[in-house]
Amino acid sequence: MPAFDLETLLSGNRRALAKAITLVESKLDEHRLQAQGILEQVLPYSGQSIRIGITGVPGVGKSTFIESFGLYLIEQGKRVAVLAVDPSSPIAGGSILGDKTRMEELSRREEAFIRPSPSEGALGGVAQKTRETMLLCEAAGYDVILVETVGVGQSEYQVAGMVDFFMVLMLPGGGDELQGIKKGIMELADALVINKADGESEKLASLARQQYTSAMNLLRHTSFWTPQVMTCSALKKINIDAVWGMLINYYFEAHSQGAFATKRAEQNRDWMHQLVNEMLMLKLSQSEGVKQLLPEMEAGVETQRITAYAAAQKIIEQL
Amino acid sequence: MPAFDLETLLSGNRRALAKAITLVESKLDEHRLQAQGILEQVLPYSGQSIRIGITGVPGVGKSTFIESFGLYLIEQGKRVAVLAVDPSSPIAGGSILGDKTRMEELSRREEAFIRPSPSEGALGGVAQKTRETMLLCEAAGYDVILVETVGVGQSEYQVAGMVDFFMVLMLPGGGDELQGIKKGIMELADALVINKADGESEKLASLARQQYTSAMNLLRHTSFWTPQVMTCSALKKINIDAVWGMLINYYFEAHSQGAFATKRAEQNRDWMHQLVNEMLMLKLSQSEGVKQLLPEMEAGVETQRITAYAAAQKIIEQL
Repeated sequence: MPAFDLETLLSGNRRALAKAITLVESKLDEHRLQAQGILEQVLPYSGQSIRIGITGVPGVGKSTFIESFGLYLIEQGKRVAVLAVDPSSPIAGGSILGDKTRMEELSRREEAFIRPSPSEGALGGVAQKTRETMLLCEAAGYDVILVETVGVGQSEYQVAGMVDFFMVLMLPGGGDELQGIKKGIMELADALVINKADGESEKLASLARQQYTSAMNLLRHTSFWTPQVMTCSALKKINIDAVWGMLINYYFEAHSQGAFATKRAEQNRDWMHQLVNEMLMLKLSQSEGVKQLLPEMEAGVETQRITAYAAAQKIIEQL
Repeated sequence: MPAFDLETLLSGNRRALAKAITLVESKLDEHRLQAQGILEQVLPYSGQSIRIGITGVPGVGKSTFIESFGLYLIEQGKRVAVLAVDPSSPIAGGSILGDKTRMEELSRREEAFIRPSPSEGALGGVAQKTRETMLLCEAAGYDVILVETVGVGQSEYQVAGMVDFFMVLMLPGGGDELQGIKKGIMELADALVINKADGESEKLASLARQQYTSAMNLLRHTSFWTPQVMTCSALKKINIDAVWGMLINYYFEAHSQGAFATKRAEQNRDWMHQLVNEMLMLKLSQSEGVKQLLPEMEAGVETQRITAYAAAQKIIEQL
């Protein structure tokens, strides 16, 4: 692989960006080391974008939304990067963004950069790679980063922990059961956007909006920001401008109250502690002594021959 | 403190039990060490009880339920221990079980042992102490262990992770919003028991029962057990026998399917791993090198002068 050139990346060269991301995603120690070197160089030039997380159940129209929203942003003179955090393999699993035809027009635009979910691996998993890719995209001049997730397992929490604004797409109707959405996700949401609010579904969507608004009001909000509930139609391009208007508003409020920088600082600190934890656990699991002792200790606590506390202590002593 | 005598504890001596628990709860290293020795001796004689977790919002009538349920169990010839997992201090916080008058009649019975929540501290926190106290109570011959929690923060998860059966008390009425109960808790529940189903509230309770039954059916159940929804009145002692009937039924099913032992084995193993994790983090936080480096690294990632990954690596290198 040719040497990395910072200037080329900073100029917005897509090939340089793609190559740097490939290093970030690589499982080879050598590449990993190279990637860390690149990230160090890139760091001072990153951070200037607005990072937006987008989730929603399958069928809610995430791709169509991102396509319409992305194209609208480009019209406004923005450059848009679309990343994905998908805990399952892009091939075996949901194939999120694996198929660029899902965002046909957007993927053809020079101002857009679409990157499928990295496959699992290494420390911090997919989330770590997506965080690093975000930095690279920012250095390459992308103003808006959209981080998409299918919302399986813990991925929404991961995404909410790496973005400035977390948006949950919803379907019109079925508001009674809150569409089986995890309540924890509602608590993470800075906005609920009810998609497919067009034609016959418009009334349903407006009803759902009312229901979600009451539901959201039941949740406690500690932040300066009151989560918004909106309707839109990504397909018919209705209210897409209003979604962006809301984001601009958030951006302004968050910056003027100092909350923007504070949130990012907290996210970085939390992430560092999480990585420390993961690195420690990795170190432990690679220790020869632990490898030998662990099966015995597990069997011991399972059959109640030793207390969990005593077993844990014996394992720690191996380090 | 006098030497611990295993036989005295096994004979069901309440003073010996209380003393052993005091050692378990102590923050002194010396007591901690002594407690571990006791637990090792006690372990072969523990495990024979049924461990039942009980949670519910304040005002649902947990104390009254435990009083009625406990007295009923004593009538059935059982010995009952009541423990609490309260993340807040028993004095400053909700004062859970701090006041024995809450269970006036039960607390006067020889067959009952009531212990307020230990105050925070040491590895594994309140949960670790409650787990150990559970073993001591079992060795002292208690057949049913009731573990109560006010359901603040993560305490329900902790309790669900240490009991055989997890029961959520509910109020009649207000079923629409599921009474603000966290959906995650619903997923943990082996049974929802709607309390205060007496007098004018009976109809409401029966309606709530229907609503909760449909809501529970929406959740996926991977276990052999289908969570039950029941009504009762702890105050009027209505259906208390039915609650015990359900538990007996669970016990029988769980044992005959081998699920009882499997669940406990998993709980023990998970707990051991969690303790290993905590011990490691403690070791890290006590390292002089880390103490010196940490503020610099935190400031570095907060102001984006260093990546979280690089900072985490530097911290790990101190070990």
